[in-house]
Amino acid sequence: MPKATRTKKIKLKSKPIVSPEIHMNNSVTFRLQASGVAQAGICGSWMGSDGWNLPEKKMKKGKDGVWEYKTGILPGDLHTYFFTVDGVRVVDPLNAHAIRDVSSLSSVFLIDADIAVYYKVQNVPHGTVVKRWYTSSGVENYRRISIYTPPGYEKSGKNFAVLYLLHGMGGDEESWLESGRLAQVMDNLIAEEKCKPIIVVMPNGNVAQEAAPGFSSEGFIRPSFVLPNTMDGTFEASFSDILKFVEENYRVIKSKKGRAIAGLSMGGYHTANISRYYANTFDYMGLFSPALNNKPERHPSAIAYQNIEERLKQQKKNGYRLFWISVGEEESPLLINGIYDYKDRMDQIGMSYHFQETEEGHTWSNWRKNLVDFVQLIF
Amino acid sequence: MPKATRTKKIKLKSKPIVSPEIHMNNSVTFRLQASGVAQAGICGSWMGSDGWNLPEKKMKKGKDGVWEYKTGILPGDLHTYFFTVDGVRVVDPLNAHAIRDVSSLSSVFLIDADIAVYYKVQNVPHGTVVKRWYTSSGVENYRRISIYTPPGYEKSGKNFAVLYLLHGMGGDEESWLESGRLAQVMDNLIAEEKCKPIIVVMPNGNVAQEAAPGFSSEGFIRPSFVLPNTMDGTFEASFSDILKFVEENYRVIKSKKGRAIAGLSMGGYHTANISRYYANTFDYMGLFSPALNNKPERHPSAIAYQNIEERLKQQKKNGYRLFWISVGEEESPLLINGIYDYKDRMDQIGMSYHFQETEEGHTWSNWRKNLVDFVQLIF
Repeated sequence: MPKATRTKKIKLKSKPIVSPEIHMNNSVTFRLQASGVAQAGICGSWMGSDGWNLPEKKMKKGKDGVWEYKTGILPGDLHTYFFTVDGVRVVDPLNAHAIRDVSSLSSVFLIDADIAVYYKVQNVPHGTVVKRWYTSSGVENYRRISIYTPPGYEKSGKNFAVLYLLHGMGGDEESWLESGRLAQVMDNLIAEEKCKPIIVVMPNGNVAQEAAPGFSSEGFIRPSFVLPNTMDGTFEASFSDILKFVEENYRVIKSKKGRAIAGLSMGGYHTANISRYYANTFDYMGLFSPALNNKPERHPSAIAYQNIEERLKQQKKNGYRLFWISVGEEESPLLINGIYDYKDRMDQIGMSYHFQETEEGHTWSNWRKNLVDFVQLIF
Repeated sequence: MPKATRTKKIKLKSKPIVSPEIHMNNSVTFRLQASGVAQAGICGSWMGSDGWNLPEKKMKKGKDGVWEYKTGILPGDLHTYFFTVDGVRVVDPLNAHAIRDVSSLSSVFLIDADIAVYYKVQNVPHGTVVKRWYTSSGVENYRRISIYTPPGYEKSGKNFAVLYLLHGMGGDEESWLESGRLAQVMDNLIAEEKCKPIIVVMPNGNVAQEAAPGFSSEGFIRPSFVLPNTMDGTFEASFSDILKFVEENYRVIKSKKGRAIAGLSMGGYHTANISRYYANTFDYMGLFSPALNNKPERHPSAIAYQNIEERLKQQKKNGYRLFWISVGEEESPLLINGIYDYKDRMDQIGMSYHFQETEEGHTWSNWRKNLVDFVQLIF
């Protein structure tokens, strides 16, 4: 090294404050520059495992007015979190990436280890994500729908299989793309040839909504967890509008062997009902933490909920390739009992299914894993 | 009314705290439930008009621990704002809707009066919004692009005109859809037959990025305002990749009369350069607050920046229908001078243009208006 540079004093720049900082070992440090704040805390999706309750952890104030919290080693996942600043829930001001889940925003980061390598945008061919509108005569509405087409769909002359993928209560046509990492999971599994290149259709299962909050003519409304007519059979009865729209507008296999349907929580309930009502339509069913504690019998006038036993027998008789049910071991007993009731019904008529218990509870962490598992088994 | 109900005491529910509350006269009240906070403030896009500086207004604490701030009557617009909680910048915890602009999130609401009725999702037919990827040999990258197709495109056998719409520095292929309300503006103007049903193509103009932050293999990175190679001619030289992709994949008019190009700030600079370099390609140019203070001459080796005078003369000679330039009266003198320099160049060779001065400065408020004006004049 020449003398001149060797003797030159190196000017140290003050390091910019980073949050979240993901360390080599997948522990994470969060920072909040807030010298005027008396108390700061953090709630992260990794802190609770039932999907409902998160403890708040205190952040610690440093001399420089920067509050910090460091986690242990985190599992590979899409993690969400928020801070509390003197009791006010806020997203991390240093993190530009947030996801809306029902009516709240949470900051987000990815630990791309284990199964979560599939949640990352990798250097592989990417499918196309489309947001468009269809007319649903069944619910007298012009409705928004999200559709993923696999890499090569546009230039291929082939017909593709379709997975209809349904959201849970408080969700909408954005949920599987945002919280579910649908496009990344599909791109990556297709690139590894672990999943067929298929189309994934994500409708809005809330018939009271024409579109996700912010995308409808209601404007930037405050989203509600509970909406009218979500589990009264209206969505299920009108599902033929969606099938018709997809089969008229996309190059798809127009028979049972080319159709799968899956959903989480309320979407799992919808999946059970739709696949039973349209009893010869789907070869593959995926029920992720299905909210089968809701009983169709409560709405006796709903056309999609009539003759349950007969339709279930018909579904069995017509045949299918996979009926896949998963549930987290920390789910509510109510939900677990609902699933066992439906399994009993299936057992009574000798209907086959795959049943899988996972760790944790009613969480996106589970549903993303369910998706990765399920799409490798279909078509 | 039967006596029994008449004598029944009506139980008053405590009113939920709402923020933002938009009043009948388009004034707005913001609320923040934060009893443990010593100071709360608000910065709103309507408070500053140059696009760079926003004063902070103090919120006032009520007896119930709810801080409030009430505006005067606000103009129709998509407004953004954030709170400060003991000095920490946060989005409104009661508002689920936020937009990322460069590296920060801001809460958002719409006053749907005046021109902003075009920014609202109205009950009109909606176009389709597509996010897909194309291969750019020019920048050796697989790159993400946003495309709007008008209502009826899918079922029509016709060829459509295309507007190529470019973002500014710190922006990406999401910006015109998020901050620019592109899909809503197009849907509404097309429904009123004030604009032709056209395709709008929104590429990512940062050649150092394959996609918007969060959508690329870089993961959930902190977005930068300044990126390498944004105004060195690389994007302009590789623009033929985008033209090729669009014309191979969409039913479009493949001649000058079917092509327009427009952009804001850096995108206005790109528009000037692209339309000059591809001198017989576009019939309509829109430069919204163009950053023409950047001089192509600084990059003499850039192929798209060579022979500026000759190419400009060629662009004139080839003919075009509209060269539209707008600038806010409160823009920086540097930017305004850059525009006057380019106008001088055009004047010297007798090139015609439309020049429009607007209120305010370097703001999305201006660019949304520019868009509404410009798309009514093309095709």
